[in-house]
Amino acid sequence: MIDLDLIGIATGNPDHLTAQAVQAMNSADLILLPRKGEAKSDLIDLRRAICTRVLTGPTRIVAFDMPVRDAGGDYADTVDAWHDAIAAAWSAQIAVHLPDGGRLALLVWGDPALYDSSLRIAERLQAGGLPLRVRVVPGLTSLQLLTAAHAIPLNALAGAVTITTGRLLRACGWPDAADTVVVMLDSGCAFDVLEPHGISIWWGAYLGMAEETLFHGPLATVAPRIAAARAALRARHGWIMDIYLLRKDGADVA
Amino acid sequence: MIDLDLIGIATGNPDHLTAQAVQAMNSADLILLPRKGEAKSDLIDLRRAICTRVLTGPTRIVAFDMPVRDAGGDYADTVDAWHDAIAAAWSAQIAVHLPDGGRLALLVWGDPALYDSSLRIAERLQAGGLPLRVRVVPGLTSLQLLTAAHAIPLNALAGAVTITTGRLLRACGWPDAADTVVVMLDSGCAFDVLEPHGISIWWGAYLGMAEETLFHGPLATVAPRIAAARAALRARHGWIMDIYLLRKDGADVA
Repeated sequence: MIDLDLIGIATGNPDHLTAQAVQAMNSADLILLPRKGEAKSDLIDLRRAICTRVLTGPTRIVAFDMPVRDAGGDYADTVDAWHDAIAAAWSAQIAVHLPDGGRLALLVWGDPALYDSSLRIAERLQAGGLPLRVRVVPGLTSLQLLTAAHAIPLNALAGAVTITTGRLLRACGWPDAADTVVVMLDSGCAFDVLEPHGISIWWGAYLGMAEETLFHGPLATVAPRIAAARAALRARHGWIMDIYLLRKDGADVA
Repeated sequence: MIDLDLIGIATGNPDHLTAQAVQAMNSADLILLPRKGEAKSDLIDLRRAICTRVLTGPTRIVAFDMPVRDAGGDYADTVDAWHDAIAAAWSAQIAVHLPDGGRLALLVWGDPALYDSSLRIAERLQAGGLPLRVRVVPGLTSLQLLTAAHAIPLNALAGAVTITTGRLLRACGWPDAADTVVVMLDSGCAFDVLEPHGISIWWGAYLGMAEETLFHGPLATVAPRIAAARAALRARHGWIMDIYLLRKDGADVA
């Protein structure tokens, strides 16, 4: 039997780990760290730094090459094939490093429930016959780091919130009836599809870390500044993770 | 100057606190705990237990009577008057216990950004002339504890998520175009307004605590069981905090 802990580790700042996450990391026999190529080597370094900071015992740490998603073709099909490839990569590591079972931990950016594929990949392994018991250790998401950094509420007073992706915002525009929209997984400034009048934006990148960068203000004014800063930051660091909240002006006057 | 830390403390389990939350509690001069009457005395006891568990220094803890929201009248008006009354209560405590300024901490269930009034009340004090510097320390929300307990993703594959309230679900029904809806602040089974066919529910109460109770399954089947359990639990404990996720069946087949 493999006991798999999917551990939410927030966005890179070890102070944002919960006590439960630290305990789970320390009780693992093996922590698998995904390697995503040279340009994103910061990301595996950050995970290693978190391990160094919190591990007190003999937990083994093993890096493995993370399959890359095919950028072409139908989105759902390529995601499906990519999840299969990741499941095969986990399987291979488990066969080598935990042949007799044990506790396996994976460190997930943010929270394992939100725009992360680990739960779906674990399901694939179970469906393939691997005896796998899954536990989720929740972690702070970039969404929470964003609202904390700006010291703003997520919801307008008594209002609903839509969490969506850059892809959906581009495809479908502003979600009907929403007054607050949070956009994640945006590969670049999907807010450009919106008519900006009457919308304010709160944007953040590298949240919770030394490189944290924030902008906020009317979308019409701030959007070009965000686009320029985003391109420059991405070039400097080799990667960027950003998120933003859009709110209709006046939404908080319930 | 008052430095106000709004500290997210998750849902009552000290293991769900972040290191940053523990540091913030320990660097406060004063922690104010709201007292909400006899029936909800568990809630102040839980906050006291968290303080006992994590405080290592001389931080003072003071309880104050939390104003009660007027249940009648227009919702927005009564919320407005209630926020004024809470602001006055904070002011009075600050005048007595931090007359020369200092670090004040408030312990917020979940995350200060999500369905919590503390940020709006702090704004009122600033608008009233109190020199107040606000910092938000994010915390896990019941939403994250819910998805962790059920080991489910929040979003359907590549899908959007709507977070809403029991009041809005009753007033507006299922949000247009949503495939996943999370309902918070529901004073009792607002899912009853929905045509249940084709919808599944994942429900949880007292999340992360010894009393944690979970149900999931097709809404048509599970709704009556939840309603009965909820009434019994509320009678037993004097209070209940619950949350649920509703998903259209087949939403995950992108």
